[in-house]
Amino acid sequence: MAVSYPEPHYARRAERMRASEIREYLKLIDRPGLISFAGGIPDPALFPAEAFAAAYARVLGDPATAKSALQYSISEGYLPLRQWIAERMTRDRGIPCTADNVMITAGSQQALDFIGKLMLSAGDTALVAAPTYLGALMAFNPYEPRYDALPMEASNRTPASYADASAAAAPGARVKLAYAVPDFANPTGETMPLEERRRLLALADELDCVVVEDTAYTERFSGDPQPSLASLDVADKGSVDASRVIHCGTFSKVLAPALRIGWVVAAAPIVRRLVLIKQAADLHSGTIDQVVMHQVAAETYDSQIAKVTASYRERRDAMLSALARHMPAGVHWSRPEGGMFVWASLPPGQDAGALVERAVAEQQVAYVPGRAFFTDGTGTECFRLSFTLPTPPQIEKGIGKLARVFAAA
Amino acid sequence: MAVSYPEPHYARRAERMRASEIREYLKLIDRPGLISFAGGIPDPALFPAEAFAAAYARVLGDPATAKSALQYSISEGYLPLRQWIAERMTRDRGIPCTADNVMITAGSQQALDFIGKLMLSAGDTALVAAPTYLGALMAFNPYEPRYDALPMEASNRTPASYADASAAAAPGARVKLAYAVPDFANPTGETMPLEERRRLLALADELDCVVVEDTAYTERFSGDPQPSLASLDVADKGSVDASRVIHCGTFSKVLAPALRIGWVVAAAPIVRRLVLIKQAADLHSGTIDQVVMHQVAAETYDSQIAKVTASYRERRDAMLSALARHMPAGVHWSRPEGGMFVWASLPPGQDAGALVERAVAEQQVAYVPGRAFFTDGTGTECFRLSFTLPTPPQIEKGIGKLARVFAAA
Repeated sequence: MAVSYPEPHYARRAERMRASEIREYLKLIDRPGLISFAGGIPDPALFPAEAFAAAYARVLGDPATAKSALQYSISEGYLPLRQWIAERMTRDRGIPCTADNVMITAGSQQALDFIGKLMLSAGDTALVAAPTYLGALMAFNPYEPRYDALPMEASNRTPASYADASAAAAPGARVKLAYAVPDFANPTGETMPLEERRRLLALADELDCVVVEDTAYTERFSGDPQPSLASLDVADKGSVDASRVIHCGTFSKVLAPALRIGWVVAAAPIVRRLVLIKQAADLHSGTIDQVVMHQVAAETYDSQIAKVTASYRERRDAMLSALARHMPAGVHWSRPEGGMFVWASLPPGQDAGALVERAVAEQQVAYVPGRAFFTDGTGTECFRLSFTLPTPPQIEKGIGKLARVFAAA
Repeated sequence: MAVSYPEPHYARRAERMRASEIREYLKLIDRPGLISFAGGIPDPALFPAEAFAAAYARVLGDPATAKSALQYSISEGYLPLRQWIAERMTRDRGIPCTADNVMITAGSQQALDFIGKLMLSAGDTALVAAPTYLGALMAFNPYEPRYDALPMEASNRTPASYADASAAAAPGARVKLAYAVPDFANPTGETMPLEERRRLLALADELDCVVVEDTAYTERFSGDPQPSLASLDVADKGSVDASRVIHCGTFSKVLAPALRIGWVVAAAPIVRRLVLIKQAADLHSGTIDQVVMHQVAAETYDSQIAKVTASYRERRDAMLSALARHMPAGVHWSRPEGGMFVWASLPPGQDAGALVERAVAEQQVAYVPGRAFFTDGTGTECFRLSFTLPTPPQIEKGIGKLARVFAAA
C-alpha cells in the first residue's frame, strides 16, 4: 500500500475546517505606522496588570496555595470562581443560579465548541444570523451542521418552515440550536430589540432547541439595557434548570483574554454534560489562572467595567463623529451602543475588499472587508471598523484617510 | 410541541460520553488519614513553585511584556516555547524538527481530542491497547470510532485482518489511527519492546494510518531507554514531515499540570490542520502561561527531571520491596521502569473491586480496581497502584495493610 504522507486520511469533517480569513488578513497588515481599524481585540493598556501581578504573587507566595494552584483540578472549574460568577449572573444579568449551573471554559470560544459537540449530529441545523461571529461557525463546522438564517422576521419564515427545511436536509435531522449575540454583535455592533428576543425564544420553544447566548460584549456605552435571553427564558420557565438558554460569558474583554477564562451558565443537566466534554477535551482550565482570575475579578471587576466602558465610549464617539464629518455621501454606518465595532457599507456596487488594498497601500489605514463575515459571498460593499485600539486622534486621522480613499473610488 | 427541558435533543455522540469511573471514585475516597495508591497525579512538593513565582513576577513586572502576556495570541502557540520544544525533541528524543512542527496544546489530553477530531469519522477504527489510558478513549469516543485491539502479536492478527474488520464495520470506514503509550503506560506501567515498536510502525504503514504516540511519562528510573516511535519513523522516512507519527508531550508530570501546557510534534501539514482545530476550539492556550512555562522550562527542566526521577524511583523501589515482603501468594505485579504505576493482579476469581471497599473501610487504604481500565468488563482481578504521592514509609505501611486484606480474602 502506498504511503501517502504528508496527506493522511482525515475525517470527513476536516473538509469544513478552514483558516479564518480575518486572522490571515490581520497577519498581512501587521506593520508599523499603519492605523488599524481591523483588529477585534481589547486595548492592553486597560488590563489590570498590577492586580494580576499581585494575585499571582499572592497565590504562589504561600506554599500551600502554590501546591494546589499548580496541581490538577476538577473539570467543572474552581469552585470559588464558579460561585462568584453565579452571584454576578444572579445579580447583574437576572439569571438566578448556583455554582452547579456554572462551568468554566477556555474563553467563550471553547463553550461554542463544546455546545456544538454536545448538540450537533451531522446534518442537524443551527440557526445563525448573517453576518455573524465567524468563530462560532468555525466552532460548529466540525460537527457538520447545516445552517439556516435568523432572524425569522427578515424572511417572513414560520417556525414550521425551519423544522421542515431541517428535516428535509437529512434523515432524522432537526434544528438543534439557535446561536445569538444579542448585544453589540460582531461584526454589526447591533443590539437585538426586546421583541426579537422574545420571538427567538418562542421559536426555540416551538422547535424544542437550545438557544446559545454569546455575551462576549456586555458593556453598554449608551441607550437602554435589554434583558438577556437567559433572564427572559428563566423568568418564563421559572428557573435556570428549566431554561433552554445556554448563556456564555467571558473575562476576555473586561479583564484580560490571555488567561482563557470564560463560563457557561445553563440548566444543571446540560452543565453536567458539558463537564463530561470538558473532562475528555482538556481535563480542566488552568488551575492557577482560575484562582488568580477569581481574585482579580473580586477586586477589580466593577472598576474595570467602568474603565473599559469609559475608554471605548470615548473612542466610539470619536469614530462616529469622524465618520459624520469625513465620509462621502452613500457611505452608511451603524451607531453601536457597546462592543468594539462599527459596521458600515459603501454605495452599492463598490467593493470594500478591493478598496482596502488601496487604503493600506496609499493611506496606511486598514479595516476588515465585510465579505469575510458572510458564508455566501455577499457583503461585498460592507466593512467592519474596530475602535478599541486606536486613540481618538488616531481615529480622527484614520477615518479622514479612509474617506479620501472612498471619495476617490 | 412539548418542551422537554431539561432534556434537550443531544447529538448522537452524547450517548458515548460518560464520566470517568476513576474520577468519581477518587472523589469518594478523598478523606483524611487514608493512604491512597489510587491517584495518578504528580507530587506537588516536587513542583518548582519558586521558579514559577519568579517567572510570573518577571513577566508581569515589565509593562511591555505584561501587555503582550495578557493579550490574545496565536493559535500555534508562543514561538519561543515552540522553538525550545523543537530543540529538546531534536536533542532528547531523536526527532529533528522545527517550530513549524510544534503546536502547543492544553496538556496532552487536548492533543488527543484534536487528533480524534481530525482523523475519525463515525465508524472509523482506532487501534488501542487493552487496558489503555481511559482519557484517550474518552477523547476519541465523541467522534464515534470503533476500537480494535493492539498489540497484534497478542492475537496473531494480520494487517489485512484489521483492514477487513474495519471496512466491514461501516461503509467506507478504515483504520485511521493507532494509539500507543510506549513508555510506562497507564495503567500497566509497561514499556513497549523495540520489536513491538517496529511492528506497530510497519502495521501503520500497511494500513496507511497515523500513529499517536502519547509520552505523558518519559522519565526512566532503570533499564535501557527505547527509541520513541517518532524517532524510529522519522529515521525510516527521512524527516518528520514524512512521518506518520503524531508525538504528544506534556509538562504536566515534570514541571506542573496546572498551566495546561502540552505539545504535539508532527509533520507540518498535520500541524497546520491541528492549528485550525485549535483556533476553532479555544483560539489559543493561555498566553502568560506559555511565556512563564518557557522561562521555567529553560531554567529548571533538566534539574526537575533529575529531581522527579530520583523521588519516584525511591517510591517505586519502596513499593516493589513492600509488595515482595507482604503480598500473599498468587498476587502478581509489574516492575515498571518509570511512570507512576504498578499494575497488579489477585489470584483468579478474586474481585479487586469488591476488595477495595474492604480495604478502604477496614484498613484506610485505597487503589483503583482494574476493571475501570477495560471497556469489556474484564480485568476483575486486576488493580492499579500509584506510588507518586505517598512517602516510602506510607507505602510500606499501606502495602502491609493491603496485604492483610488480600490474605483474608
